Amino acid sequence: MVGLPARGKSFISQKSKYIESIKTFMWSIILTIFKSVVRYLSWLSIKAKSFNVGSYRRQNHKHPDAEFFDIRNKEGWQKRQEAAEQAVTDMMNWFSDEQGVVAILDATNATRERRDWILRLCRENSIEPMFLESWCDDEKIIKKNILDVKATSPDYEGLNQEDAYEDFLKRIAKYEENYEPLDEIASKDLTFVKLINVSQQVIINKIETYLESRIVYYVMNLHIKPRCIYLSRHGESMYNLEGKIGGNADLSERGFQYAKKLPELVKQLAGDDHQKLTVWTSTLVRTQQTAEHLPYNQLQWKALDELDAGACDGLTYEEIERKFPDDFKQRDENKYEYRYRGGESYRDVVIRLEPIIMELERQENILIITHQAVLRCIYAYFMNVPQEESPWMSIPLHTLIKLEPRAYSTLVQRLKADIPAVSTYKERGTSRLGEIEDANNKSKHLITGEPVSADHPLAIK
Amino acid sequence: MVGLPARGKSFISQKSKYIESIKTFMWSIILTIFKSVVRYLSWLSIKAKSFNVGSYRRQNHKHPDAEFFDIRNKEGWQKRQEAAEQAVTDMMNWFSDEQGVVAILDATNATRERRDWILRLCRENSIEPMFLESWCDDEKIIKKNILDVKATSPDYEGLNQEDAYEDFLKRIAKYEENYEPLDEIASKDLTFVKLINVSQQVIINKIETYLESRIVYYVMNLHIKPRCIYLSRHGESMYNLEGKIGGNADLSERGFQYAKKLPELVKQLAGDDHQKLTVWTSTLVRTQQTAEHLPYNQLQWKALDELDAGACDGLTYEEIERKFPDDFKQRDENKYEYRYRGGESYRDVVIRLEPIIMELERQENILIITHQAVLRCIYAYFMNVPQEESPWMSIPLHTLIKLEPRAYSTLVQRLKADIPAVSTYKERGTSRLGEIEDANNKSKHLITGEPVSADHPLAIK
Repeated sequence: MVGLPARGKSFISQKSKYIESIKTFMWSIILTIFKSVVRYLSWLSIKAKSFNVGSYRRQNHKHPDAEFFDIRNKEGWQKRQEAAEQAVTDMMNWFSDEQGVVAILDATNATRERRDWILRLCRENSIEPMFLESWCDDEKIIKKNILDVKATSPDYEGLNQEDAYEDFLKRIAKYEENYEPLDEIASKDLTFVKLINVSQQVIINKIETYLESRIVYYVMNLHIKPRCIYLSRHGESMYNLEGKIGGNADLSERGFQYAKKLPELVKQLAGDDHQKLTVWTSTLVRTQQTAEHLPYNQLQWKALDELDAGACDGLTYEEIERKFPDDFKQRDENKYEYRYRGGESYRDVVIRLEPIIMELERQENILIITHQAVLRCIYAYFMNVPQEESPWMSIPLHTLIKLEPRAYSTLVQRLKADIPAVSTYKERGTSRLGEIEDANNKSKHLITGEPVSADHPLAIK
Repeated sequence: MVGLPARGKSFISQKSKYIESIKTFMWSIILTIFKSVVRYLSWLSIKAKSFNVGSYRRQNHKHPDAEFFDIRNKEGWQKRQEAAEQAVTDMMNWFSDEQGVVAILDATNATRERRDWILRLCRENSIEPMFLESWCDDEKIIKKNILDVKATSPDYEGLNQEDAYEDFLKRIAKYEENYEPLDEIASKDLTFVKLINVSQQVIINKIETYLESRIVYYVMNLHIKPRCIYLSRHGESMYNLEGKIGGNADLSERGFQYAKKLPELVKQLAGDDHQKLTVWTSTLVRTQQTAEHLPYNQLQWKALDELDAGACDGLTYEEIERKFPDDFKQRDENKYEYRYRGGESYRDVVIRLEPIIMELERQENILIITHQAVLRCIYAYFMNVPQEESPWMSIPLHTLIKLEPRAYSTLVQRLKADIPAVSTYKERGTSRLGEIEDANNKSKHLITGEPVSADHPLAIK
């Protein structure tokens, strides 16, 4: 059956808007797109959630075989219909009760009839629908997709590889039987995006609102080639030694040691991939000094500069607490929203980082050398860390982090250089910083970035 | 003939890259797109230029009738081929001699043969081609386009409306005869964008590089509905009175007077359109105080904040000259590139304004209340002002500017409130500011923004 056109489909909408997927054959690609869109929108403070019909169905029918998906199988059809209804009901409640903005209805809807049903429901609830279809006739992509699905789908949990593969091919055939692709002409009044062979060709129809346009541009820029992002703060700086924030100080002696050590750390963590690296730094001296021994192409981004502390630039936390006691308290109460007098908030940093994230999604292997707050924001995007937590994450100095985005999650590894550095981590409610950050002392997890728990978004595995 | 499918075509490329247009029927749309793309890229410091084959042809054949475009007309065919060859030669020279990055080859190329010829030339010169086709079957758009063309095309200069209309319909028929649209399947190895009914449907194929992706996103967001952009600086501030730059000061008494007067000025300049306005301000107090009497939806943008003067924030120009004499000189020498210590350059401001420009292109009527440097950058985008001049433009206080983008140029009107304000204009080589800016004294054109000359990019007509 491999070689038959394999496709996948999906949808979106807005007043709020929703995205609906027919994630049959291009399942792993669609899954990556949907997971990424939810993560991207949430990171931009746009309330987004995915409703997966498959997981509703699995509550009653955990491991269906291919026959379950035959259109002539009455019981199967009924169960799938019930799951879809339940997902749509929950989605509508989420829109109205929780002021949701973008819902993704992640469901197998291969027929025009099913899509019309969803369209009607959306219209009745003043939800603007946007459809996303993924179509594919590239054998390589199809094969990779089938391998990914049988390796990762909860439907095949516990089944051996051979049987899962066999069954999945059969399931594709069942979908093939009654799959009706979106038609560019007949559907010309619908808002839709059709991806052909991932994003080799993209057809965009009636994209009108700002949010639609942002989502489309984001999806266009996603690729599914494996790649890694490497993150590091600059080496310890003279300001770090003095406990001052902001400024444009040089590295300390230990900071320069880290810069010297960095090429070796990169090789160790990146393996053969290190040859294909590009380095991004901010425009501040300390990131460029940190990058100076790295033998790769380098690019400076103003958007990677540290969060602007405005009136507090160059002060220590103790001085800030003394000079601006109210501000100091306010910042601890809502660190994400707090904007320094004449400076920036974490939210401001996220907005100026958006083009960086877009470009990161287009690129392959990138090493970013930047600053504590900026790194927290980038890390939060890839790891889906909620806003109330991200400004409190510990990202220690002299540590190289490797992120490996996958369909289900992003893998994280970190490598600590054997070079001590001060801690720049300020705990809530105090102006004191942590103790000297000793590479060999792993007990202070908030300072050294030790795993909190495997599932916790702060976890650096 | 009206009602027959009317289309237009075009192309692009990169190592450098070029855009080639078959601008037959969708001529005015394609023209708007091409002019805008060149303006947008130039504004982002990406060297771009358009090569119009029609204007090469007109050097030898000023007012051709429809017969000239008949494929059986040997003389016509020859002259058009010569013009195309000359345009392509000049384009290739521009790439190699002037390090051009994006060329637009704005030509009538309706046949596959002609496109293959251009493709071959590009490949031989290591230029990556990107094709842009505009296809249309919407009668309303076609009619509007025909009316625009006969009103504006240099080919019909001096001809009466009726004859021009008649001849243009005939010319369309000539093109119809041998027009071969880009085929989505046969052309699947080409990088192309196909616009259907302006941007109702957009087909994007093999977009791979960053620059391609930026151009595509920009083109997707352009619309051709008539609309106006209104610009104003905040009212005079306390810092303006003291000659200080930066900060977050309140308005002066006269500044508050301007805020009170602004709703009336807006009504006067916008007419009935004023009801559909949205107001954008920066996050700084003085722009919000200026907007406070405006009865329209308002939106705050951090990206509209004034250029960050870093270490010079809160100083007068005289203090800057005394404290940082070298910096003061450097800034006068290259004001566009000069980055304040710990602050921004004009280039930095342009980069952070890019999402604002993108959103402005998507919107209809917007009133922006912002700051001197930011307003210069926005104005420079719409008026295509070169970088070496834009930081020196005079944008006086207490003046409302109206921009009306058209296919050929942007119309500008300004309305000065009868409320005096200090001048904040610093001439090159001095730390002194202009005198009090008196609404009734129009002699100091650099301060009041009087027209320099009708063609000059600084001209505010």
